[in-house]
Amino acid sequence: MSSQAPHPTLLIPGPIEFDDAVLQSMAHYAESHVAPGFVKTFGETLTLVRKLFQSTNPAAQPFVISGSGTLGWDVVASSLVEKGENALVLHTGYFADSFATCLQTYGANATQLKAPIGERPSFEAIEQALKEKPYKIITITHVDTSTGVLSDIKRIAEIVRRVSPNTLVVVDGVCSVGCEEIAFDEWDLDVVLTASQKAIGCPPGLSILMTSPRAINVFKNRQSPPASYYSSIGNWLPIMQNYENFKPSYFATPPTQLVHALHTTLSQITSRPMAERFAVHAQASDRVKAAVAELGLKQLAAKPENQAHAMTAIWLPEGLAPPDVLPGLLKRGVIFAAGLHKEAATKYIRFGHMGVSVSDPTRKDIDNAIAALKEAMAEAKQAKGL
Amino acid sequence: MSSQAPHPTLLIPGPIEFDDAVLQSMAHYAESHVAPGFVKTFGETLTLVRKLFQSTNPAAQPFVISGSGTLGWDVVASSLVEKGENALVLHTGYFADSFATCLQTYGANATQLKAPIGERPSFEAIEQALKEKPYKIITITHVDTSTGVLSDIKRIAEIVRRVSPNTLVVVDGVCSVGCEEIAFDEWDLDVVLTASQKAIGCPPGLSILMTSPRAINVFKNRQSPPASYYSSIGNWLPIMQNYENFKPSYFATPPTQLVHALHTTLSQITSRPMAERFAVHAQASDRVKAAVAELGLKQLAAKPENQAHAMTAIWLPEGLAPPDVLPGLLKRGVIFAAGLHKEAATKYIRFGHMGVSVSDPTRKDIDNAIAALKEAMAEAKQAKGL
Repeated sequence: MSSQAPHPTLLIPGPIEFDDAVLQSMAHYAESHVAPGFVKTFGETLTLVRKLFQSTNPAAQPFVISGSGTLGWDVVASSLVEKGENALVLHTGYFADSFATCLQTYGANATQLKAPIGERPSFEAIEQALKEKPYKIITITHVDTSTGVLSDIKRIAEIVRRVSPNTLVVVDGVCSVGCEEIAFDEWDLDVVLTASQKAIGCPPGLSILMTSPRAINVFKNRQSPPASYYSSIGNWLPIMQNYENFKPSYFATPPTQLVHALHTTLSQITSRPMAERFAVHAQASDRVKAAVAELGLKQLAAKPENQAHAMTAIWLPEGLAPPDVLPGLLKRGVIFAAGLHKEAATKYIRFGHMGVSVSDPTRKDIDNAIAALKEAMAEAKQAKGL
Repeated sequence: MSSQAPHPTLLIPGPIEFDDAVLQSMAHYAESHVAPGFVKTFGETLTLVRKLFQSTNPAAQPFVISGSGTLGWDVVASSLVEKGENALVLHTGYFADSFATCLQTYGANATQLKAPIGERPSFEAIEQALKEKPYKIITITHVDTSTGVLSDIKRIAEIVRRVSPNTLVVVDGVCSVGCEEIAFDEWDLDVVLTASQKAIGCPPGLSILMTSPRAINVFKNRQSPPASYYSSIGNWLPIMQNYENFKPSYFATPPTQLVHALHTTLSQITSRPMAERFAVHAQASDRVKAAVAELGLKQLAAKPENQAHAMTAIWLPEGLAPPDVLPGLLKRGVIFAAGLHKEAATKYIRFGHMGVSVSDPTRKDIDNAIAALKEAMAEAKQAKGL
């Protein structure tokens, strides 16, 4: 039995439904950010972030910072790229445009490699682009929340290492960390940035990054000073290292309650093998995608290899828009999201299937949502005479 | 009866003790950041921020952003100052040094006007400095958390308007907003930046700013693009305006639970006249300072007009350091903070008296803390043979 007040089930691609214990951690009594109790919680949390990324390299460095997921872009753009350096931004939806804008704000030359909606740049095009000029970083949106397109970051990292070995591989994992497979060390990634409120299952307000020794060295060897204060890796690095060694440290007051909630959810997640968690998400995703196909609906990500396991972006039939369908879902206790990609926002809806809605077998969230989708679609079509 | 687990009373200069209802809001169930329920909560919260600042000018603009208080410096430094412009930083402790570093990170020429520990720059020195060169902004730490020094921001704003009317008056109110008098419109301030976890009484994780039309115009008339993405006023302005008009909007996912908690505490705070709240804090502060004097102890801020009402920074007698006294306080259920000012950190302790510990008459936090301080001091002196 959930101790939460009755509410519709939130099945958007983040924030997601939260576990009772996680929400209880949010209500933790006041603690000093430098007192032993909290220092231990924060230190352990950083170690749990390593486990989340299946990283065992002590020279890799996790960061947990007060801020939205968006802040992670600033950390990368202000710490790892210098004015005039090149960034290759792989575009699979809305979030690449924003990341490119952030990079340009700090003076990078951002080149976007685009693909049509629902697709992703080909491996050949990526390899070709990397050969054309020296790129300081390449950015990849692991799962673009606007389109549900999954990128093959393992394979892209292999291409980068072969063709342009010094280019930093930066993954925007906001909609993937905690549900899509990531092997940080093994795949030789340099940065994975994410947020707390998606598959990690912690309320929004934490910017989380995992960084490689290569990335930290790039920061340390900058020619120019970091271009930000709050987003500078240099200001946070000693803080994270101290806390993980159970020493208090101060740069900015950490969000103590959110850190407790992150500790709770990461303890839950990492108590089982990550491979099991990825498999559970893949199974739920397969069920959703089968149900969508049965309804005669198509996904933005048409090709199976492009389809995220975290969410499904579904084209509506001609003549229907999100406001025709979403209220029918809400009536049945389920919240989906409208479209977000600027060229097509009014033509599709998004169904997020992450976290406890998928991993807690006592909930029936996915079954209920599939049933609600069937009924709401039928109702909407009938109302429009389709 | 508090519903919180038993814990020592947190009387550091932030985070502070939180009200039960505020902590319950932290455990709010998952909501979409763009659904009507949350949009209403966020919109109302922004309007409550205006009341907190006693502002009725619709052209003034509140911001509530996911981040630590430190982030507010980046918002100012990256949005309101351009490379090569001058910033006059009034120094009353640790936090001026950090704000100056942040300003310099974004290219400002920051000039610090310093005073000895426990003092503040004189009005004459401030006026003189303002006449020497054109300053884009002047920054004032309203209460410096490292020293407990209070600045007279009303009088400084008057000097600025008389001597250098276009200079933006920027107040770091992290340790003052919610307990020290601030009349944003009437005093003609341009920016007051603060954080959630001090006298506002909301857990840490929110950067809160109030800005004047003059400040917004300075942003809009920049010659160069803003120097940050996440900290740019331009990226947040339409979001805040939309939410306050109850329209969903997206730049970064807001920390929904923290916003609920802020809504709860601001509703409590603004349900009574702000003058009453300031008076209650002044009374509690007077009691603390009288008790400190009775113990024969001196404050870092020696002059009464320099003394904050939010906190008291207390010199320890020769021969005692914070580790000699703080454990004795903890044994009696009270947490104070060690020193923070780098030149004197080992020689003093800090007692925060803000929020529910002061305003909730059913709590005996201040009485208990004063009693604990007397006993812990006597015990520490005895142990050292003093």
